Amino acid sequence: MRIAFCCTDVKAGPWLDELRAAVPDAQVEEWQPGAPPADHAIVWAPPQQFLDEQQQLKGIFNIGAGVDALLKLRLPAGARVVRIDDGGMAVQMAEFVCHAVIRHFRELDVYADQVAQGKWGFRTPRRRADFPVGVMGLGVLGARVAQAVAQFDFPVNGWSRLPKELPGVRGYTGAEQFGEFLAATRILVCLLPLTPDTENILNRDTLGKLRPGGYLINVARGAHLVDADLLELLDSGHVAGAALDVFRDEPLPPEHPFWRHSKITVTPHTSARTLREESVAQIVRKIRALERGEPVAGVVDPQRGY
Amino acid sequence: MRIAFCCTDVKAGPWLDELRAAVPDAQVEEWQPGAPPADHAIVWAPPQQFLDEQQQLKGIFNIGAGVDALLKLRLPAGARVVRIDDGGMAVQMAEFVCHAVIRHFRELDVYADQVAQGKWGFRTPRRRADFPVGVMGLGVLGARVAQAVAQFDFPVNGWSRLPKELPGVRGYTGAEQFGEFLAATRILVCLLPLTPDTENILNRDTLGKLRPGGYLINVARGAHLVDADLLELLDSGHVAGAALDVFRDEPLPPEHPFWRHSKITVTPHTSARTLREESVAQIVRKIRALERGEPVAGVVDPQRGY
Repeated sequence: MRIAFCCTDVKAGPWLDELRAAVPDAQVEEWQPGAPPADHAIVWAPPQQFLDEQQQLKGIFNIGAGVDALLKLRLPAGARVVRIDDGGMAVQMAEFVCHAVIRHFRELDVYADQVAQGKWGFRTPRRRADFPVGVMGLGVLGARVAQAVAQFDFPVNGWSRLPKELPGVRGYTGAEQFGEFLAATRILVCLLPLTPDTENILNRDTLGKLRPGGYLINVARGAHLVDADLLELLDSGHVAGAALDVFRDEPLPPEHPFWRHSKITVTPHTSARTLREESVAQIVRKIRALERGEPVAGVVDPQRGY
Repeated sequence: MRIAFCCTDVKAGPWLDELRAAVPDAQVEEWQPGAPPADHAIVWAPPQQFLDEQQQLKGIFNIGAGVDALLKLRLPAGARVVRIDDGGMAVQMAEFVCHAVIRHFRELDVYADQVAQGKWGFRTPRRRADFPVGVMGLGVLGARVAQAVAQFDFPVNGWSRLPKELPGVRGYTGAEQFGEFLAATRILVCLLPLTPDTENILNRDTLGKLRPGGYLINVARGAHLVDADLLELLDSGHVAGAALDVFRDEPLPPEHPFWRHSKITVTPHTSARTLREESVAQIVRKIRALERGEPVAGVVDPQRGY
């Protein structure tokens, strides 16, 4: 068995070492143009040439939760695209989102500003019933995030394409319940896959439906958000603030107004990083299963887009 | 039945309104010197005169988790001191501590500094196995905190006077296992009651036993910590930082070095505030139980000190 590694902007050495140790019966090589055909590939932002040459691929493993960029390429006909369905990312996402929710709800930035000025003073405690959290997307990451937030006794709403039952989470389904979901939500967390249906889904109209004083946490893709619409709603005060980890162009261009906006917290796409150790173990398990003809989780439906 | 309200630095009006609505058969009054004897009292930092005059008290309800200040006073012989055993505080403590743990573990302050300078850059992800969290004190607050932290897959240690089993928490008991608990801990959370046994428990010796790069979160009482010892360990680098919500003197005096120390995050004793609504409901339930001669939770043992 041959496994090709073709990841842009990823240091190959440690991945190759760990993959070779985990699958000693396979030849694991970093792809070069003209390399012999591989059975499986581990990819991140591969060039089109790689996919054109490697027509025998059975499994293409994307080291990251989002496959939107990959699906824009022409793929070998027989290949299944498989997402890392956790790889240590779900817990990171849960902690990153909980941190942002708590920081906003408890006004910890306000306290930090006061303390920087040497001021000792209290804010009137807010009622958590006034801060329902709504999670868009209830896949592996969204489900874990919703339940982590619920543990802090916030009312939690979840919105998904298909009905999904999670303890402590009030479910809303499909386009017809989207408005109702937004109206019941004050802190909105986006964890959707990026597809033609979800691009620009965070816009003037949808964010305008949130409860007054809404807060946006976007940890999915920058293209979910219409930047200008968020800025307008922050100016009007309908949206109180945002924690943005992803951007339409990354790195976020130096001149972009998000960098220094007083109501926006920027982080450099770091909410959930692919952890090599967990990912290698998971990819190897899935390669073995595919080789045995067994089903694996995380196979992407190209029509659906995730 | 008479209920006296005697709370320093607390606006009495809303408490009296809610108590009267909840116990319509009682006379609920803010205490004045010479007032008729009450059956129960709701107190926060009451003057000694109040306790000297009110010798008939059966229940003294302290609106806060710590009774260290109250127990320094002479109390009426027949009165039981009852703590608010939650009053909405446990969830606040859980979120405050989780926020501090995540902020430190994920280096979110470092990212905030980078972003303030317009820098886009990644930190190497840390392994959560290298950041075991240890919770000192496993009462109502400590137990909730330990379990909230455990949900983010950190190794969690708990230290308590008596053995206590909590799912996902490795328990250490008493003085004989204290050193072992500290040596197994990197992020130390103090949620102990303040008693003669626990005063100054966070000192050069104990903090020095933490794993290198330790981090202290003190949300209990300022007198648990020997301030100079922490500063020394921060200078030596053995302790990497601290989140301090409580101080020996509050408000923290303007000249105190904690205010502007780059490795210390100060908050003004705001980790868990007593929420009126929850507290009134709980106090009323307990008054009814005491009146019926039933046992109630949270009765303080004056010898033990909590």
